[in-house]
Amino acid sequence: MAKDSFLVGLIGSGIGPSLSPALHEREADRQGLRYLYRLIDIDTLGVGAEAAGDLVRAARDLGYDGLNITHPCKQLVIEHLDGLDPQAEALGAVNTVVFEDGRAIGHNTDVTGFAASFARGLPDAPLERVVQLGAGGAGAAVAHATLTLGAGRVTVVDALPDRAADLAASLNRHFGAGRATAATPDRLAALIGRTGGIDGLVHATPTGMAAHPGLPFPAELLHPGLWVAEVVYRPLETELLRTARAMGCATLDGGGMAVFQAADAFRLFTGREPDTTRMLDDIAELAGALPAPK
Amino acid sequence: MAKDSFLVGLIGSGIGPSLSPALHEREADRQGLRYLYRLIDIDTLGVGAEAAGDLVRAARDLGYDGLNITHPCKQLVIEHLDGLDPQAEALGAVNTVVFEDGRAIGHNTDVTGFAASFARGLPDAPLERVVQLGAGGAGAAVAHATLTLGAGRVTVVDALPDRAADLAASLNRHFGAGRATAATPDRLAALIGRTGGIDGLVHATPTGMAAHPGLPFPAELLHPGLWVAEVVYRPLETELLRTARAMGCATLDGGGMAVFQAADAFRLFTGREPDTTRMLDDIAELAGALPAPK
Repeated sequence: MAKDSFLVGLIGSGIGPSLSPALHEREADRQGLRYLYRLIDIDTLGVGAEAAGDLVRAARDLGYDGLNITHPCKQLVIEHLDGLDPQAEALGAVNTVVFEDGRAIGHNTDVTGFAASFARGLPDAPLERVVQLGAGGAGAAVAHATLTLGAGRVTVVDALPDRAADLAASLNRHFGAGRATAATPDRLAALIGRTGGIDGLVHATPTGMAAHPGLPFPAELLHPGLWVAEVVYRPLETELLRTARAMGCATLDGGGMAVFQAADAFRLFTGREPDTTRMLDDIAELAGALPAPK
Repeated sequence: MAKDSFLVGLIGSGIGPSLSPALHEREADRQGLRYLYRLIDIDTLGVGAEAAGDLVRAARDLGYDGLNITHPCKQLVIEHLDGLDPQAEALGAVNTVVFEDGRAIGHNTDVTGFAASFARGLPDAPLERVVQLGAGGAGAAVAHATLTLGAGRVTVVDALPDRAADLAASLNRHFGAGRATAATPDRLAALIGRTGGIDGLVHATPTGMAAHPGLPFPAELLHPGLWVAEVVYRPLETELLRTARAMGCATLDGGGMAVFQAADAFRLFTGREPDTTRMLDDIAELAGALPAPK
């Protein structure tokens, strides 16, 4: 008899508002699985990120089938795992742990999730020259995805110069010299503006979330012909996406990445194929309907 | 919105064949709850019974709502809990732990479960003089239940004289001097036989289970007019019950105790009222249909 009962969870900080329980459980319910997704918040437990290893071991002992891992545990958890898939190893970050015969194997579905969302939502987008804003954890995953999809050159822009430089250096090690360069925000006008000659823009900073409203750069830098891909998914339509769409840019919202990273984790946990079309409907409902244009 | 998602489990040794997951999950499914019951077997984990405290703490941290506890952890777990209900405190054994606002409270539904099963299955049984075989963990719970139901005097018989004496002493402390006495199996003929004058017999040893087939004493000691209550529930019809029923004795199988202890734990975990009639049907199906009489 195929296994049809699954216990999974999310370890991280401040994860109360996560949509992952609903995304996973709704899809599991449609497939007739017994599936429980628990939030394991280190803030609520009063422990630090270094507790991630103990929590992973305890989850394995207590019948968990797998875990998602988020900020600030994605790197710290690695030393406590028994193996990594190539994606997680290349990135140096794990967002999914699967327990297989008592071994804990780390994966990264942020990378595969963004790649799948991009391939679906912007299938014909040119990728010769890409600018990416944000070199944090999400930024690192998204840059790996973009280069894996075949991007020619990616310029990583971050207000922290060292963070941008470290990510660019890591990308060049993995994808070949000259594929990535680092820049600071003062160069954005030159990079994004019409004379910059880029094909599209990936936004991977928190700007545009409810707690960080607004645009990540002046609206006048946008121009038709650019594509704009967003990582933020709450709200689904950020001010950046609304502005870009009004200007005629092709856009990709962050809901797709959220869905495909969850779908890839679901597949790893259960061995079953999720229906991502239904999951995209779910996130549209869960993240709220699009607000009316201004 | 009422909570409708529950994660519970069983900690113990050699619990693979337990019917508790099925009993709990079937009832939860009928009530439309998301409910997962996991087995946490210390043998599989390669740890000793003393690990029970750590496992309970880890379960609380990892989003469990409660736990059942079984052999060999029912006593050892107590020092790791934040409180006990009166039943568990009197017995010195816990089979159910409920997490409430981060506190772990111990209960004992073996006692309430046997009492409920007896009251339902043998409602008119006289209880002035009762003999009980077996003074182990199940025996202690069942003796507490029988005396709580109003039994006048209980004679506890065990092949280990100290175990029988300790249980009788403990029962007398809790229920009053003279309510319990201890005996060894060589006195069974005098105690159970027609001249013994007892009303009924509670069987709380493993004899009659698949691994320990047969009768716990010679069949000729049974006689019509005795009631016989069984703790073993796999099979539901033990050789003792079959023999007693053929002789015209009123009987109570062990399925009722298994169901009512599970139902009481379900109520503690969920705050919802289980339908024990449906659960009795479940155990009849799960424990196997009655074998044909010889």
